[in-house]
Amino acid sequence: MARQERAIRTRRVILEAAGAVFDEHGYASTTIAMVLERAEVTKGALYFHFPSKESLAQAVLAEQVLFGSVPSRGCKLQEVIDMTFAVGQRLRSNALLRGGVRLAVDQETPAGIDRGEPFRQWSRRLTALLEQAAEQGELLPTVRPAETVDLLVGSFTGIQLMSRALTDRADLGQRLAVLWAHMLPSIAVPGLLPGLDSRADRGVRVLAEIETAEDAESAEGAGERAPAGVR
Amino acid sequence: MARQERAIRTRRVILEAAGAVFDEHGYASTTIAMVLERAEVTKGALYFHFPSKESLAQAVLAEQVLFGSVPSRGCKLQEVIDMTFAVGQRLRSNALLRGGVRLAVDQETPAGIDRGEPFRQWSRRLTALLEQAAEQGELLPTVRPAETVDLLVGSFTGIQLMSRALTDRADLGQRLAVLWAHMLPSIAVPGLLPGLDSRADRGVRVLAEIETAEDAESAEGAGERAPAGVR
Repeated sequence: MARQERAIRTRRVILEAAGAVFDEHGYASTTIAMVLERAEVTKGALYFHFPSKESLAQAVLAEQVLFGSVPSRGCKLQEVIDMTFAVGQRLRSNALLRGGVRLAVDQETPAGIDRGEPFRQWSRRLTALLEQAAEQGELLPTVRPAETVDLLVGSFTGIQLMSRALTDRADLGQRLAVLWAHMLPSIAVPGLLPGLDSRADRGVRVLAEIETAEDAESAEGAGERAPAGVR
Repeated sequence: MARQERAIRTRRVILEAAGAVFDEHGYASTTIAMVLERAEVTKGALYFHFPSKESLAQAVLAEQVLFGSVPSRGCKLQEVIDMTFAVGQRLRSNALLRGGVRLAVDQETPAGIDRGEPFRQWSRRLTALLEQAAEQGELLPTVRPAETVDLLVGSFTGIQLMSRALTDRADLGQRLAVLWAHMLPSIAVPGLLPGLDSRADRGVRVLAEIETAEDAESAEGAGERAPAGVR
Protein backbone atom coordinates (compact mmCIF):
# COMPACT_ATOMS: atom_id res chain seq x y z
CA MET A 1 0.00 0.00 0.00
CA ALA A 2 2.76 2.45 0.92
CA ARG A 3 4.55 1.46 -2.28
CA GLN A 4 1.46 2.22 -4.32
CA GLU A 5 1.05 5.61 -2.67
CA ARG A 6 4.66 6.36 -3.50
CA ALA A 7 4.05 5.42 -7.14
CA ILE A 8 1.05 7.76 -7.31
CA ARG A 9 3.11 10.54 -5.78
CA THR A 10 5.98 9.94 -8.20
CA ARG A 11 3.62 9.99 -11.17
CA ARG A 12 2.26 13.30 -9.92
CA VAL A 13 5.73 14.80 -9.50
CA ILE A 14 6.61 13.79 -13.07
CA LEU A 15 3.38 15.20 -14.47
CA GLU A 16 3.86 18.52 -12.72
CA ALA A 17 7.44 18.76 -13.95
CA ALA A 18 6.31 17.91 -17.50
CA GLY A 19 3.56 20.53 -17.33
CA ALA A 20 6.06 23.19 -16.29
CA VAL A 21 8.53 22.25 -19.05
CA PHE A 22 5.80 22.09 -21.73
CA ASP A 23 4.53 25.48 -20.51
CA GLU A 24 7.94 27.09 -20.77
CA HIS A 25 9.27 25.43 -23.93
CA GLY A 26 6.35 24.00 -25.90
CA TYR A 27 6.13 20.48 -27.24
CA ALA A 28 8.87 20.46 -29.87
CA SER A 29 11.66 21.87 -27.67
CA THR A 30 10.82 19.73 -24.64
CA THR A 31 13.00 16.67 -24.01
CA ILE A 32 12.60 13.81 -21.57
CA ALA A 33 15.94 14.86 -20.06
CA MET A 34 14.51 18.29 -19.19
CA VAL A 35 11.54 16.67 -17.44
CA LEU A 36 13.85 14.27 -15.57
CA GLU A 37 15.99 17.13 -14.33
CA ARG A 38 12.97 19.12 -13.18
CA ALA A 39 11.23 16.17 -11.51
CA GLU A 40 14.39 14.79 -9.86
CA VAL A 41 13.29 11.19 -10.42
CA THR A 42 15.15 8.32 -12.05
CA LYS A 43 14.85 7.55 -15.74
CA GLY A 44 13.39 4.15 -14.79
CA ALA A 45 10.63 5.76 -12.74
CA LEU A 46 9.70 8.12 -15.56
CA TYR A 47 9.60 5.42 -18.24
CA PHE A 48 7.61 3.16 -15.91
CA HIS A 49 4.80 5.75 -15.86
CA PHE A 50 5.27 7.36 -19.28
CA PRO A 51 6.91 5.37 -22.08
CA SER A 52 7.33 8.41 -24.37
CA LYS A 53 7.14 12.19 -24.71
CA GLU A 54 3.82 11.73 -26.53
CA SER A 55 2.32 9.84 -23.58
CA LEU A 56 3.54 12.57 -21.21
CA ALA A 57 1.89 15.25 -23.33
CA GLN A 58 -1.36 13.29 -23.57
CA ALA A 59 -1.41 12.82 -19.78
CA VAL A 60 -0.80 16.55 -19.19
CA LEU A 61 -3.68 17.34 -21.58
CA ALA A 62 -5.94 14.86 -19.79
CA GLU A 63 -5.34 16.53 -16.40
CA GLN A 64 -6.68 19.87 -17.59
CA VAL A 65 -10.33 19.29 -16.88
CA LEU A 66 -9.60 18.35 -13.23
CA PHE A 67 -8.69 21.99 -12.60
CA GLY A 68 -12.36 22.85 -13.05
CA SER A 69 -13.27 21.33 -9.66
CA VAL A 70 -15.46 23.63 -7.57
CA PRO A 71 -17.96 23.08 -4.73
CA SER A 72 -21.33 21.80 -5.93
CA ARG A 73 -24.06 24.50 -6.02
CA GLY A 74 -27.84 24.29 -5.92
CA CYS A 75 -27.86 26.67 -8.87
CA LYS A 76 -26.04 24.82 -11.65
CA LEU A 77 -25.47 27.95 -13.73
CA GLN A 78 -23.56 29.44 -10.80
CA GLU A 79 -21.49 26.24 -10.70
CA VAL A 80 -20.60 26.71 -14.39
CA ILE A 81 -19.66 30.34 -13.71
CA ASP A 82 -17.54 29.23 -10.74
CA MET A 83 -15.67 26.68 -12.87
CA THR A 84 -14.61 29.32 -15.39
CA PHE A 85 -13.36 31.65 -12.65
CA ALA A 86 -11.61 28.84 -10.75
CA VAL A 87 -9.76 27.71 -13.89
CA GLY A 88 -8.87 31.33 -14.64
CA GLN A 89 -7.45 31.80 -11.17
CA ARG A 90 -5.56 28.46 -11.19
CA LEU A 91 -4.05 29.34 -14.59
CA ARG A 92 -2.17 32.15 -12.89
CA SER A 93 -0.17 29.81 -10.66
CA ASN A 94 -0.47 26.16 -11.72
CA ALA A 95 2.20 25.02 -14.17
CA LEU A 96 0.53 21.66 -14.92
CA LEU A 97 -2.66 23.42 -16.02
CA ARG A 98 -0.68 26.03 -17.95
CA GLY A 99 1.30 23.33 -19.74
CA GLY A 100 -1.91 21.56 -20.76
CA VAL A 101 -3.40 24.79 -22.10
CA ARG A 102 -0.25 25.54 -24.09
CA LEU A 103 -0.26 22.03 -25.62
CA ALA A 104 -3.93 22.42 -26.60
CA VAL A 105 -3.46 25.89 -28.08
CA ASP A 106 -0.06 25.74 -29.81
CA GLN A 107 -0.23 24.70 -33.43
CA GLU A 108 3.25 23.16 -33.13
CA THR A 109 1.84 20.33 -30.99
CA PRO A 110 2.05 17.48 -33.53
CA ALA A 111 -1.00 15.84 -35.07
CA GLY A 112 -0.29 12.57 -33.22
CA ILE A 113 -1.27 14.31 -29.95
CA ASP A 114 -5.02 14.82 -29.73
CA ARG A 115 -5.30 18.55 -28.99
CA GLY A 116 -9.07 18.39 -29.40
CA GLU A 117 -9.48 16.08 -26.39
CA PRO A 118 -9.44 18.72 -23.60
CA PHE A 119 -11.92 20.84 -25.59
CA ARG A 120 -14.23 17.82 -25.82
CA GLN A 121 -13.78 16.98 -22.12
CA TRP A 122 -14.67 20.52 -21.04
CA SER A 123 -17.65 20.50 -23.39
CA ARG A 124 -18.99 17.20 -22.01
CA ARG A 125 -18.59 18.24 -18.39
CA LEU A 126 -20.12 21.71 -18.78
CA THR A 127 -22.94 20.46 -21.03
CA ALA A 128 -24.00 17.98 -18.34
CA LEU A 129 -24.18 20.86 -15.83
CA LEU A 130 -26.11 23.15 -18.19
CA GLU A 131 -28.56 20.35 -18.94
CA GLN A 132 -29.17 20.05 -15.20
CA ALA A 133 -29.62 23.82 -15.06
CA ALA A 134 -32.20 23.59 -17.86
CA GLU A 135 -34.11 20.84 -16.02
CA GLN A 136 -34.19 23.06 -12.93
CA GLY A 137 -35.71 25.92 -14.94
CA GLU A 138 -32.64 28.17 -14.72
CA LEU A 139 -32.24 28.69 -18.48
CA LEU A 140 -34.20 30.51 -21.15
CA PRO A 141 -36.10 28.02 -23.33
CA THR A 142 -34.09 29.14 -26.39
CA VAL A 143 -30.77 27.85 -24.95
CA ARG A 144 -29.23 24.74 -26.49
CA PRO A 145 -26.77 23.63 -23.79
CA ALA A 146 -24.17 21.99 -26.06
CA GLU A 147 -24.02 25.04 -28.35
CA THR A 148 -23.76 27.54 -25.49
CA VAL A 149 -21.05 25.44 -23.85
CA ASP A 150 -18.99 25.25 -27.04
CA LEU A 151 -19.15 29.03 -27.24
CA LEU A 152 -18.08 29.32 -23.59
CA VAL A 153 -15.12 26.97 -24.01
CA GLY A 154 -13.97 28.69 -27.22
CA SER A 155 -14.38 32.18 -25.77
CA PHE A 156 -12.59 31.24 -22.55
CA THR A 157 -9.65 29.85 -24.54
CA GLY A 158 -9.22 33.06 -26.50
CA ILE A 159 -9.82 35.39 -23.57
CA GLN A 160 -7.12 33.75 -21.44
CA LEU A 161 -4.78 33.81 -24.44
CA MET A 162 -5.33 37.53 -25.06
CA SER A 163 -5.01 38.23 -21.34
CA ARG A 164 -1.71 36.34 -21.32
CA ALA A 165 -0.38 38.19 -24.38
CA LEU A 166 -1.30 41.62 -23.00
CA THR A 167 -1.03 41.40 -19.19
CA ASP A 168 0.44 37.95 -18.38
CA ARG A 169 -3.10 36.98 -17.26
CA ALA A 170 -3.28 39.67 -14.55
CA ASP A 171 -6.64 40.95 -15.91
CA LEU A 172 -8.18 37.53 -16.62
CA GLY A 173 -10.77 37.77 -13.80
CA GLN A 174 -11.94 41.15 -15.12
CA ARG A 175 -12.19 39.77 -18.67
CA LEU A 176 -14.25 36.80 -17.47
CA ALA A 177 -16.60 39.17 -15.66
CA VAL A 178 -17.13 41.04 -18.97
CA LEU A 179 -17.76 37.73 -20.78
CA TRP A 180 -20.48 36.72 -18.31
CA ALA A 181 -22.04 40.18 -18.27
CA HIS A 182 -22.56 39.86 -22.04
CA MET A 183 -23.68 36.24 -22.08
CA LEU A 184 -25.90 35.78 -19.04
CA PRO A 185 -28.88 37.80 -20.33
CA SER A 186 -29.06 35.38 -23.30
CA ILE A 187 -28.77 32.30 -21.08
CA ALA A 188 -30.45 32.72 -17.67
CA VAL A 189 -34.10 33.37 -16.88
CA PRO A 190 -34.37 37.05 -15.88
CA GLY A 191 -35.30 36.33 -12.27
CA LEU A 192 -31.99 34.55 -11.74
CA LEU A 193 -29.74 37.37 -12.96
CA PRO A 194 -29.53 39.53 -9.80
CA GLY A 195 -28.55 36.50 -7.68
CA LEU A 196 -25.71 35.22 -9.88
CA ASP A 197 -22.18 36.19 -8.88
CA SER A 198 -19.78 36.75 -11.78
CA ARG A 199 -17.67 39.57 -10.40
CA ALA A 200 -13.98 39.74 -11.32
CA ASP A 201 -12.76 38.35 -7.97
CA ARG A 202 -15.11 35.34 -8.02
CA GLY A 203 -12.18 32.95 -8.68
CA VAL A 204 -10.22 34.17 -5.65
CA ARG A 205 -13.26 33.67 -3.42
CA VAL A 206 -14.12 30.20 -4.77
CA LEU A 207 -10.55 28.96 -4.24
CA ALA A 208 -10.51 30.39 -0.71
CA GLU A 209 -13.75 28.54 0.00
CA ILE A 210 -12.18 25.28 -1.20
CA GLU A 211 -9.10 25.80 0.96
CA THR A 212 -11.19 26.44 4.05
CA ALA A 213 -13.22 23.30 3.42
CA GLU A 214 -10.04 21.25 2.92
CA ASP A 215 -8.56 22.62 6.14
CA ALA A 216 -11.66 21.64 8.07
CA GLU A 217 -11.61 18.15 6.55
CA SER A 218 -7.95 17.48 7.28
CA ALA A 219 -8.40 18.79 10.83
CA GLU A 220 -11.27 16.36 11.32
CA GLY A 221 -9.24 13.54 9.81
CA ALA A 222 -6.40 14.16 12.25
CA GLY A 223 -8.85 14.33 15.12
CA GLU A 224 -7.87 17.88 15.99
CA ARG A 225 -8.71 21.42 14.88
CA ALA A 226 -6.05 23.27 12.90
CA PRO A 227 -5.51 26.87 13.95
CA ALA A 228 -7.14 29.37 11.60
CA GLY A 229 -5.01 30.78 8.82
CA VAL A 230 -2.50 27.94 8.69
CA ARG A 231 -2.82 27.61 4.89
CA MET B 1 7.18 53.94 -61.48
CA ALA B 2 7.19 50.48 -63.03
CA ARG B 3 10.17 49.66 -60.84
CA GLN B 4 8.33 50.79 -57.73
CA GLU B 5 5.30 48.70 -58.66
CA ARG B 6 7.56 45.69 -59.09
CA ALA B 7 9.08 46.30 -55.65
CA ILE B 8 5.63 46.42 -54.07
CA ARG B 9 4.68 43.21 -55.83
CA THR B 10 7.91 41.49 -54.73
CA ARG B 11 7.37 42.56 -51.14
CA ARG B 12 3.86 41.11 -51.31
CA VAL B 13 5.10 37.80 -52.77
CA ILE B 14 7.65 37.50 -49.95
CA LEU B 15 5.05 38.33 -47.28
CA GLU B 16 2.64 35.73 -48.61
CA ALA B 17 5.36 33.10 -48.73
CA ALA B 18 6.43 33.98 -45.18
CA GLY B 19 2.82 33.77 -43.97
CA ALA B 20 2.45 30.30 -45.47
CA VAL B 21 5.71 29.06 -43.95
CA PHE B 22 4.95 30.54 -40.50
CA ASP B 23 1.48 28.98 -40.70
CA GLU B 24 2.85 25.54 -41.47
CA HIS B 25 5.98 25.50 -39.29
CA GLY B 26 5.63 28.17 -36.60
CA TYR B 27 8.20 30.81 -35.76
CA ALA B 28 11.03 28.70 -34.35
CA SER B 29 11.21 26.16 -37.20
CA THR B 30 10.91 28.74 -39.99
CA THR B 31 14.11 29.74 -41.77
CA ILE B 32 14.78 32.51 -44.27
CA ALA B 33 15.82 29.77 -46.74
CA MET B 34 12.35 28.21 -46.53
CA VAL B 35 10.72 31.58 -47.30
CA LEU B 36 13.15 32.16 -50.20
CA GLU B 37 12.31 28.81 -51.71
CA ARG B 38 8.58 29.39 -51.40
CA ALA B 39 8.69 32.98 -52.72
CA GLU B 40 11.11 32.22 -55.58
CA VAL B 41 12.87 35.56 -55.17
CA THR B 42 16.57 36.33 -54.74
CA LYS B 43 18.19 36.59 -51.34
CA GLY B 44 19.03 40.21 -52.14
CA ALA B 45 15.39 41.06 -52.81
CA LEU B 46 14.27 39.48 -49.56
CA TYR B 47 16.91 41.20 -47.42
CA PHE B 48 16.16 44.51 -49.17
CA HIS B 49 12.58 44.35 -47.85
CA PHE B 50 13.11 42.38 -44.63
CA PRO B 51 16.52 42.46 -42.94
CA SER B 52 15.69 39.57 -40.54
CA LYS B 53 13.27 36.79 -39.64
CA GLU B 54 11.98 39.02 -36.81
CA SER B 55 11.10 41.81 -39.27
CA LEU B 56 9.31 39.29 -41.51
CA ALA B 57 7.25 38.03 -38.57
CA GLN B 58 6.41 41.54 -37.45
CA ALA B 59 5.28 42.45 -40.98
CA VAL B 60 3.11 39.32 -41.23
CA LEU B 61 1.51 40.24 -37.88
CA ALA B 62 0.91 43.82 -39.05
CA GLU B 63 -0.98 42.63 -42.17
CA GLN B 64 -3.58 40.80 -40.10
CA VAL B 65 -5.96 43.68 -39.52
CA LEU B 66 -6.20 44.43 -43.27
CA PHE B 67 -8.12 41.17 -43.67
CA GLY B 68 -10.99 42.81 -41.81
CA SER B 69 -11.87 45.00 -44.82
CA VAL B 70 -15.59 44.94 -45.62
CA PRO B 71 -17.96 47.34 -47.39
CA SER B 72 -18.99 50.29 -45.25
CA ARG B 73 -22.53 49.98 -43.79
CA GLY B 74 -24.98 52.56 -42.56
CA CYS B 75 -25.47 50.38 -39.49
CA LYS B 76 -22.03 50.24 -37.86
CA LEU B 77 -22.89 47.23 -35.70
CA GLN B 78 -23.62 45.29 -38.90
CA GLU B 79 -20.20 46.39 -40.19
CA VAL B 80 -18.55 44.96 -37.04
CA ILE B 81 -20.48 41.71 -37.51
CA ASP B 82 -19.40 41.60 -41.16
CA MET B 83 -15.74 42.04 -40.22
CA THR B 84 -15.80 39.01 -37.93
CA PHE B 85 -17.43 36.83 -40.58
CA ALA B 86 -15.13 38.09 -43.36
CA VAL B 87 -12.03 37.33 -41.30
CA GLY B 88 -13.46 33.92 -40.42
CA GLN B 89 -14.06 33.13 -44.08
CA ARG B 90 -10.64 34.44 -45.20
CA LEU B 91 -8.95 32.35 -42.49
CA ARG B 92 -10.08 29.25 -44.36
CA SER B 93 -8.05 30.04 -47.46
CA ASN B 94 -5.54 32.86 -46.90
CA ALA B 95 -2.10 31.69 -45.76
CA LEU B 96 -0.83 35.19 -44.93
CA LEU B 97 -3.71 35.74 -42.51
CA ARG B 98 -3.32 32.24 -41.08
CA GLY B 99 0.40 32.78 -40.54
CA GLY B 100 -0.30 36.02 -38.68
CA VAL B 101 -2.86 34.35 -36.46
CA ARG B 102 -0.48 31.51 -35.65
CA LEU B 103 2.31 33.95 -34.74
CA ALA B 104 -0.07 35.86 -32.45
CA VAL B 105 -1.43 32.74 -30.78
CA ASP B 106 1.61 30.44 -30.44
CA GLN B 107 3.46 30.82 -27.19
CA GLU B 108 6.68 29.80 -28.94
CA THR B 109 6.76 33.13 -30.78
CA PRO B 110 9.65 34.81 -28.92
CA ALA B 111 9.19 37.80 -26.62
CA GLY B 112 11.09 40.07 -29.05
CA ILE B 113 8.12 39.83 -31.46
CA ASP B 114 5.19 41.89 -30.23
CA ARG B 115 2.33 39.34 -30.27
CA GLY B 116 0.03 41.82 -28.55
CA GLU B 117 0.14 44.24 -31.50
CA PRO B 118 -2.53 42.62 -33.72
CA PHE B 119 -4.84 42.32 -30.69
CA ARG B 120 -4.40 46.04 -30.05
CA GLN B 121 -4.90 46.90 -33.74
CA TRP B 122 -8.16 44.94 -33.93
CA SER B 123 -9.31 46.54 -30.69
CA ARG B 124 -8.62 50.08 -31.92
CA ARG B 125 -10.32 49.54 -35.25
CA LEU B 126 -13.43 47.83 -33.87
CA THR B 127 -13.73 50.26 -30.95
CA ALA B 128 -13.85 53.20 -33.39
CA LEU B 129 -16.70 51.45 -35.23
CA LEU B 130 -18.63 50.64 -32.05
CA GLU B 131 -18.24 54.23 -30.85
CA GLN B 132 -19.83 55.37 -34.11
CA ALA B 133 -22.58 52.81 -33.55
CA ALA B 134 -23.15 54.25 -30.07
CA GLU B 135 -23.39 57.80 -31.45
CA GLN B 136 -25.97 56.59 -33.96
CA GLY B 137 -28.09 55.13 -31.15
CA GLU B 138 -27.51 51.49 -32.16
CA LEU B 139 -26.21 50.32 -28.77
CA LEU B 140 -27.74 49.83 -25.35
CA PRO B 141 -26.63 52.64 -23.01
CA THR B 142 -24.89 50.08 -20.77
CA VAL B 143 -22.35 49.13 -23.47
CA ARG B 144 -18.76 50.29 -23.03
CA PRO B 145 -17.35 49.93 -26.57
CA ALA B 146 -13.71 49.19 -25.65
CA GLU B 147 -14.73 46.49 -23.16
CA THR B 148 -17.18 44.82 -25.55
CA VAL B 149 -14.59 44.90 -28.34
CA ASP B 150 -11.92 43.29 -26.16
CA LEU B 151 -14.38 40.52 -25.41
CA LEU B 152 -15.16 40.11 -29.12
CA VAL B 153 -11.50 39.93 -30.12
CA GLY B 154 -10.67 37.45 -27.36
CA SER B 155 -13.69 35.27 -28.07
CA PHE B 156 -13.05 35.28 -31.81
CA THR B 157 -9.45 34.19 -31.22
CA GLY B 158 -10.49 31.21 -29.14
CA ILE B 159 -13.44 30.23 -31.30
CA GLN B 160 -11.34 30.05 -34.47
CA LEU B 161 -8.71 28.08 -32.54
CA MET B 162 -11.24 25.55 -31.25
CA SER B 163 -12.81 25.31 -34.71
CA ARG B 164 -9.36 24.64 -36.18
CA ALA B 165 -8.55 21.96 -33.59
CA LEU B 166 -11.88 20.15 -34.05
CA THR B 167 -12.93 20.67 -37.69
CA ASP B 168 -10.01 22.45 -39.44
CA ARG B 169 -12.19 25.61 -39.32
CA ALA B 170 -15.03 24.07 -41.38
CA ASP B 171 -17.62 25.06 -38.73
CA LEU B 172 -16.22 28.54 -37.99
CA GLY B 173 -19.16 30.39 -39.60
CA GLN B 174 -21.62 28.40 -37.50
CA ARG B 175 -19.63 29.11 -34.33
CA LEU B 176 -19.56 32.85 -35.09
CA ALA B 177 -23.34 32.81 -35.59
CA VAL B 178 -23.68 31.27 -32.10
CA LEU B 179 -21.34 33.93 -30.66
CA TRP B 180 -23.43 36.78 -32.08
CA ALA B 181 -26.73 35.15 -31.08
CA HIS B 182 -25.50 35.20 -27.47
CA MET B 183 -23.94 38.67 -27.51
CA LEU B 184 -26.26 40.85 -29.58
CA PRO B 185 -29.11 41.05 -27.03
CA SER B 186 -26.60 42.59 -24.56
CA ILE B 187 -25.23 45.04 -27.14
CA ALA B 188 -27.87 46.25 -29.61
CA VAL B 189 -31.05 48.21 -28.92
CA PRO B 190 -33.95 45.73 -29.22
CA GLY B 191 -35.45 47.37 -32.33
CA LEU B 192 -32.24 46.68 -34.25
CA LEU B 193 -32.09 42.93 -33.55
CA PRO B 194 -34.47 41.61 -36.25
CA GLY B 195 -32.63 43.55 -38.99
CA LEU B 196 -29.10 42.40 -38.15
CA ASP B 197 -27.69 39.55 -40.23
CA SER B 198 -25.38 37.20 -38.34
CA ARG B 199 -26.24 33.90 -39.97
CA ALA B 200 -23.52 31.29 -40.46
CA ASP B 201 -23.01 32.02 -44.19
CA ARG B 202 -22.67 35.80 -43.70
CA GLY B 203 -18.92 35.63 -44.49
CA VAL B 204 -19.47 33.87 -47.81
CA ARG B 205 -22.03 36.48 -48.84
CA VAL B 206 -19.90 39.48 -47.78
CA LEU B 207 -16.88 38.20 -49.73
CA ALA B 208 -19.06 37.57 -52.80
CA GLU B 209 -20.35 41.15 -52.53
CA ILE B 210 -16.75 42.45 -52.46
CA GLU B 211 -15.77 40.38 -55.50
CA THR B 212 -18.74 41.63 -57.49
CA ALA B 213 -17.86 45.22 -56.63
CA GLU B 214 -14.21 44.68 -57.60
CA ASP B 215 -15.22 43.11 -60.90
CA ALA B 216 -17.42 46.08 -61.73
CA GLU B 217 -14.61 48.47 -60.80
CA SER B 218 -11.93 46.76 -62.87
CA ALA B 219 -14.32 46.51 -65.83
CA GLU B 220 -14.86 50.26 -65.58
CA GLY B 221 -11.12 50.88 -65.20
CA ALA B 222 -10.34 48.89 -68.34
CA GLY B 223 -13.15 50.61 -70.20
CA GLU B 224 -14.85 47.29 -70.88
CA ARG B 225 -17.18 44.89 -69.13
CA ALA B 226 -15.71 41.59 -67.98
CA PRO B 227 -17.84 38.56 -68.75
CA ALA B 228 -19.78 37.34 -65.73
CA GLY B 229 -18.22 34.59 -63.64
CA VAL B 230 -14.63 35.30 -64.64
CA ARG B 231 -13.46 35.37 -61.00
